[in-house]
Amino acid sequence: MKTLELDLGERSYPIYIGSGLLARPELLTSYIHGARVAIVTNETVAPLYLGRVRAHLARYNPVEAILPDGEQYKTLEVLNRIFDALLQNRCDRQTTIVALGGGVIGDMAGFAAATYQRGVPFIQVPTTLLSQVDSSVGGKTGVNHPLGKNMIGAFYQPRAVVIDTDTLNTLPDRELSAGLAEVIKYGLIRDPGFFAWLEAHMDRLLARDPAALAEAIERSCRNKAEVVAADECEAGVRVILNLGHTFGHAIETGMGYGAWLHGEAVAAGMVMAADLSRRLGWLTEHDVARIRALIERARLPVQAPPMLTAAQFKSLMSVDKKVQAGKIRLVLLEALGKAVITAEVPPAVLDETLAAARAAA
Amino acid sequence: MKTLELDLGERSYPIYIGSGLLARPELLTSYIHGARVAIVTNETVAPLYLGRVRAHLARYNPVEAILPDGEQYKTLEVLNRIFDALLQNRCDRQTTIVALGGGVIGDMAGFAAATYQRGVPFIQVPTTLLSQVDSSVGGKTGVNHPLGKNMIGAFYQPRAVVIDTDTLNTLPDRELSAGLAEVIKYGLIRDPGFFAWLEAHMDRLLARDPAALAEAIERSCRNKAEVVAADECEAGVRVILNLGHTFGHAIETGMGYGAWLHGEAVAAGMVMAADLSRRLGWLTEHDVARIRALIERARLPVQAPPMLTAAQFKSLMSVDKKVQAGKIRLVLLEALGKAVITAEVPPAVLDETLAAARAAA
Repeated sequence: MKTLELDLGERSYPIYIGSGLLARPELLTSYIHGARVAIVTNETVAPLYLGRVRAHLARYNPVEAILPDGEQYKTLEVLNRIFDALLQNRCDRQTTIVALGGGVIGDMAGFAAATYQRGVPFIQVPTTLLSQVDSSVGGKTGVNHPLGKNMIGAFYQPRAVVIDTDTLNTLPDRELSAGLAEVIKYGLIRDPGFFAWLEAHMDRLLARDPAALAEAIERSCRNKAEVVAADECEAGVRVILNLGHTFGHAIETGMGYGAWLHGEAVAAGMVMAADLSRRLGWLTEHDVARIRALIERARLPVQAPPMLTAAQFKSLMSVDKKVQAGKIRLVLLEALGKAVITAEVPPAVLDETLAAARAAA
Repeated sequence: MKTLELDLGERSYPIYIGSGLLARPELLTSYIHGARVAIVTNETVAPLYLGRVRAHLARYNPVEAILPDGEQYKTLEVLNRIFDALLQNRCDRQTTIVALGGGVIGDMAGFAAATYQRGVPFIQVPTTLLSQVDSSVGGKTGVNHPLGKNMIGAFYQPRAVVIDTDTLNTLPDRELSAGLAEVIKYGLIRDPGFFAWLEAHMDRLLARDPAALAEAIERSCRNKAEVVAADECEAGVRVILNLGHTFGHAIETGMGYGAWLHGEAVAAGMVMAADLSRRLGWLTEHDVARIRALIERARLPVQAPPMLTAAQFKSLMSVDKKVQAGKIRLVLLEALGKAVITAEVPPAVLDETLAAARAAA
């Protein structure tokens, strides 16, 4: 087992990464405050892992909230089902919420923890690659609104993140690939050595080689933890973690939540960001080709859905959380392995990228 | 104009109290960050004050969310209408939310500010006595759940509180009285001199004597600010601000949100807390008679609704946010002017109070 620490002063917490961690109840129980636990999971994960977690936590008389599976259920309305379960079971402020599932479950359970009785403790137990390398770490919680992804939420840190890499054995291929999008992201924004490592080991990752996956998860979490420690509430550098996300959120919202997986939309969005960076003279054609090739090898989309018009794209992008004073701020690459935040993209160049991304074969 | 300061380190903010403050736009504009404002108000307050506030803030291109009036609308569903308005108007993270109205509006607008794009600034402009003396100060925000009052929310402080005492001229008598319940509360929990002052000046307050109201508001806000500064997130002493609220929330929830005003339920709840304190030997019969008399003079209820059974009361009280490990914690009075928090009330004594409160004439 590897242990990383996310350093946030009083709100610091450990990230445990390893095989078989779901068989070690002390990794959860050390972080449970109070006498009660509520486990939030979904209909896909529950048959696989809920029984085991419930058994470990039996003495905390666990309440369960089992939500439908999918981004389209990441809504205020479904969030309310968690509150229903907590209140029907008379859970008090000393209840610890355990998020058992992927990014949607982690975001919703975390937001429920942030707001139930104005805040209760929670623990992240991510079971998808995407949530293990990205969404379970860093305290972003929330739900979607029909007009925009993650528009309602809070920064609220877990007490611990417990990553059992064995849970990836039950992950569908499509979701494994979606997680790899966020893994590749870390290489692109701040870790060129990791990007090269991914080029060398993508086949092992796709074959679910445990050692390769553990390495990728650890390096991803380390990158994420360093960025979040430097800027918890996204006042500055943390924005770089959104590479590809402004384009990606537009795709997810525009196509209807759940049609594209988050990681798929981010993958296409990163290719668009790379294309735009090249048009601005920051990346070479060779860089873009490498990025595109790695994303394709990860079995991820490298083009945007042609049915989304450029006008729709720009309209959807204009509600992005990074917009300031009407200007879209984008995370781009000034080099392969170095992100930059800019609000100075000439509209004509953005139009070229939108046209190219939707036309590319 | 009087200015109080709520001292919370980096999150400190001023509370302005006086006549004619809605005619002083600088009290708002000094606290607006960014180029955009969203005003949240309700259908009752909008015709009275929205035009004036909108005119002052015209250069911020204000978005408006006008909600239905009443505690029964303090729900996640109605909250979503604020998000709809913000997103339809493409409000970004630099948008400042202005809460213009009573406690329901302040709580909902504040929670929307806490969670829109994971947090935007907000300003409280309370227009009811209850919100001016209590709910606008201290950062408690949230909405109700069918199973419990204020069960979903956040601690989130405003940038400023602007109390124009002239707005009380349009307040219905019933709501003026409801506000006086929270005013009396401060005397009971920590300010016996204020309690005596209220006994001497209740007639002036009911006659809406501006000087008396201003004095009552200032002394109430000063008490509130001192308690909140000592314990922002209700880990300890702040709990005393809930005198009468455990009983009161049970009445509000049990009778259906909106049937009893919050202040009315708190008034009856404070009489119950006083009765229980006497049964425990802490208050004299004379103390209880004084408390009851002052609350009656404020035209507030001094008994609980007889149709709520004792069993319903206890069931509703068991989801109170102060419950710990299955034990109801109550704020009681160890003397007139001194609150105490206890989890050690013998069930039989609580039953006596519940029986007496529902039978009393």
